Amino acid sequence: MVEQLPASLDGVFRALADPTRRSMLRALSAGECNISELAAPFSMSFAAASKHVKVLENAGLVRRKVQGRTHLCSIEPAPLAAVDEWLRFYERFWTARLDALDALLQAEDRATENFPDRKGRQ
Amino acid sequence: MVEQLPASLDGVFRALADPTRRSMLRALSAGECNISELAAPFSMSFAAASKHVKVLENAGLVRRKVQGRTHLCSIEPAPLAAVDEWLRFYERFWTARLDALDALLQAEDRATENFPDRKGRQ
Repeated sequence: MVEQLPASLDGVFRALADPTRRSMLRALSAGECNISELAAPFSMSFAAASKHVKVLENAGLVRRKVQGRTHLCSIEPAPLAAVDEWLRFYERFWTARLDALDALLQAEDRATENFPDRKGRQ
Repeated sequence: MVEQLPASLDGVFRALADPTRRSMLRALSAGECNISELAAPFSMSFAAASKHVKVLENAGLVRRKVQGRTHLCSIEPAPLAAVDEWLRFYERFWTARLDALDALLQAEDRATENFPDRKGRQ
């Protein structure tokens, strides 16, 4: 028996690099769906939709529950939390930019206050 | 002249789905590097490293400044901020799990307080 490997960031990012799979995740965020329901918004065969679900499943993003002939899918948030964790290291880069922009705007505001005749000028 | 298309989430996720490229981004988080510096930690040719940098560049994650024969690379955080923005929608799924776990632990704590003889039992 082959044990399923724990989902890697590689697989999670690869699974998310497709707009159909991101749309499927969004659909699942509203609740469990079967494969036909996931395929419905796309002009896509059941087999093609099932293949996309398999990629999401292998990445650990979706859990599939087999009930008779129906495969019920649900969202699994843990790999998304792992992506979030990975991103946190880089947050300072984009917040630093926003802080710099904020400081610039505040400096401009102060300049306008010191030279009231500039008010209204753009 | 072909205008560069704005980086898409597809391209950003695809670029991040490789451990070498994620390591390169991490190296760039410490400051600008040239291609040889980025290649150094991997047993990888200059050409192979340059190819990885090109993927990061096309995804908008890296900017390349050509100074004579040196290509200086720096990190561009905007696409990471876009990934963060995309993730925010799903945050409630993993925080909900943590909240549920927290509630469970608190309920167990209360049970222990109400039945002090249970204290110390695991």
